[in-house]
Amino acid sequence: MTAFLEDQPVVSTESRDDDPAFALHRGGKIEISLSVPLETRDDLSLAYTPGVARVCTAIAEEPDLIYDYTWMSRTVAVVTDGTAVLGLGDIGAKAALPVMEGKAMLFKHFGGVDAVPICLDVTDTDELIETVVRLAPAFGGINLEDISAPRCFEVERRVQERLDIPVFHDDQHGTAIVTLAALRNAAKVTGRTLADLRVVVSGAGAAGIAVSKMILEAGIGDLAIADSKGIVHLDRTDLNDEKRMFAGISNKAAFTGSFNDALAGADVLIGLSAGKVPFEAVQSMAPDSIVFAMANPDPEVHPDDARRAGARVIATGRSDFPNQINNVLAFPGVFRGAMEVRARCVTEGMKQAAAVALADVIADELSEDCVIPSCFDPRVAPAVAAAVADAARRDGVARL
Amino acid sequence: MTAFLEDQPVVSTESRDDDPAFALHRGGKIEISLSVPLETRDDLSLAYTPGVARVCTAIAEEPDLIYDYTWMSRTVAVVTDGTAVLGLGDIGAKAALPVMEGKAMLFKHFGGVDAVPICLDVTDTDELIETVVRLAPAFGGINLEDISAPRCFEVERRVQERLDIPVFHDDQHGTAIVTLAALRNAAKVTGRTLADLRVVVSGAGAAGIAVSKMILEAGIGDLAIADSKGIVHLDRTDLNDEKRMFAGISNKAAFTGSFNDALAGADVLIGLSAGKVPFEAVQSMAPDSIVFAMANPDPEVHPDDARRAGARVIATGRSDFPNQINNVLAFPGVFRGAMEVRARCVTEGMKQAAAVALADVIADELSEDCVIPSCFDPRVAPAVAAAVADAARRDGVARL
Repeated sequence: MTAFLEDQPVVSTESRDDDPAFALHRGGKIEISLSVPLETRDDLSLAYTPGVARVCTAIAEEPDLIYDYTWMSRTVAVVTDGTAVLGLGDIGAKAALPVMEGKAMLFKHFGGVDAVPICLDVTDTDELIETVVRLAPAFGGINLEDISAPRCFEVERRVQERLDIPVFHDDQHGTAIVTLAALRNAAKVTGRTLADLRVVVSGAGAAGIAVSKMILEAGIGDLAIADSKGIVHLDRTDLNDEKRMFAGISNKAAFTGSFNDALAGADVLIGLSAGKVPFEAVQSMAPDSIVFAMANPDPEVHPDDARRAGARVIATGRSDFPNQINNVLAFPGVFRGAMEVRARCVTEGMKQAAAVALADVIADELSEDCVIPSCFDPRVAPAVAAAVADAARRDGVARL
Repeated sequence: MTAFLEDQPVVSTESRDDDPAFALHRGGKIEISLSVPLETRDDLSLAYTPGVARVCTAIAEEPDLIYDYTWMSRTVAVVTDGTAVLGLGDIGAKAALPVMEGKAMLFKHFGGVDAVPICLDVTDTDELIETVVRLAPAFGGINLEDISAPRCFEVERRVQERLDIPVFHDDQHGTAIVTLAALRNAAKVTGRTLADLRVVVSGAGAAGIAVSKMILEAGIGDLAIADSKGIVHLDRTDLNDEKRMFAGISNKAAFTGSFNDALAGADVLIGLSAGKVPFEAVQSMAPDSIVFAMANPDPEVHPDDARRAGARVIATGRSDFPNQINNVLAFPGVFRGAMEVRARCVTEGMKQAAAVALADVIADELSEDCVIPSCFDPRVAPAVAAAVADAARRDGVARL
């Protein structure tokens, strides 16, 4: 049904629509559709009263039937509080909605998962957790999105403790899965094992911490992480709980100086901050170095400069250079796989399996300029989903 | 995208699907669809990063742009806590989901409104209110559904006080609008004015109170409302706040006995409870009486019996008798109209206008067996929407 009020005035926004991004966004990017017919009184009496009452009664008696007889088993809430939206920061719940709608598009297009944007007007951590738990019953999974660090760590952990559906903070784990997949292939193409690698990570926010944890878990040799004050180490007195915990499990080489100092002789640079990395610092890395400069839109070091400084595998967050590290390679398949087996949570094993499956998609095409598939590669989501589903069963968190 | 795991086992539910209602519900009744393309890297860079960031920034600077550049302006949250689902009672949030999905189907099919089922795991009134307020930013309206009385009155009032989008408890106002529309036409067809009518209402729950308020507001002569203890009057000591308030503004005839006693000589019976009304009580009503027996699936008095007892206009909640009083005649058009003018709330004027417009749809076809249109009549939602939009402007609550 189109607008009833054809002459509805448009409020002084036409000129914005000269920008194709605004023109595309006019009226929104997603909609609700009916997946069963509603043309006759019989249709109505099955889909709504009186027929629906029998389905409700059955679910009340046997709650897991909600997976069979509603959209819940394929539906994710994409939840934000608008505190860390893209690189824009704390722009609020309403201004975050276009990103959440975009995410819902990607969920559906790449993973066949129905995703609903939920933008919450609450920023107190306890209240945010309570609100997400309360709105969960009609959803098969919770994708937390654009929630500021370090609150995001606690929010994810405590929400998952209270719910028996997958809870996944994509800014952490989506980035981590794709980065690890690219790192696996970058090691392979440069003739190393993960255990050979000394990694330095720039950025100790949600993504930096999650990437670091996940690649350590995968078995890399050593890792140091830097925030704006330099390398995170146990002698620092300005660390939050997450960074302090992290300092304890990383940095075997015991660096205490700047990010650039730690780069000397390192095998891998992983950039997840807006800070620039000088040419000389990249030049000081080990031969055949691996540089993932993922700040968007301006990488920590331009790929051409990284190449001239001796890097052999270079990845960015941008689509106009080879090796784009893009979360969309992970989250649609992760949720698809987790939800197909009705997983109770997302385990470390499921994330590691996703990274391996994603890396393996391009086994035959592997090269320095192809360590990660294109986000339009149709093999990606099914491969990730199957690996995640298998891992969920192996880890004992699958209902099916 | 169809299932990746083709051999996914079905959990002992096949036999249920012999019931066509279960078969239709398998896998759910609604889905999310993309309303803009996502086929190329260019599409992706407009709908998601980097293009989406410009839209987010614009909304952060000018919040009302959320109406222009997201799905919010056409999207309603259908919110329940599962405490009063259909006639099934407090069956919980999960078991309520099939009804909310059905509601979303009706919103889309009849009103072109995108509606999202939200089933909340919270029943404390203060927490329920707080939760609905927190989840509101990405929605253009809130349809409260199947929340038990008397909590529903306070929930609706306090949520509306805190939000500047339409908040509408359909069990109250949807029923009231359709009932008033039918009553307007029933009065006309029996040669009366609203002021001529003495009405007795059975049932002082959400629907009974709301119907009574709305028809009093429309100008009927007198009204008495009965709960399970008899007529509500000020000498009773067992009334909740809502009923006590109501006792003060109704029952000019000062009835204090049973519902059946009050029926003697009454022009109109409105049944909104499960209680039966005896043949003799209907027989005791005024000549050419009007009987709306809306309990589902078993009307308070069978239409054939009501006819034999002297009723001239008879309506029920069922589709297999003439004059079905069905909420779907109201809520799609009410939200459509309110949202097209970006109304800040739903006023009494908007509801009254909806009832008049709904009654007027069948001006030419008016007869004893046609006092209300069919819910499949394509004129209904546009007529209601236009009237509601006009009333919103008249009442000064429209942004457009």
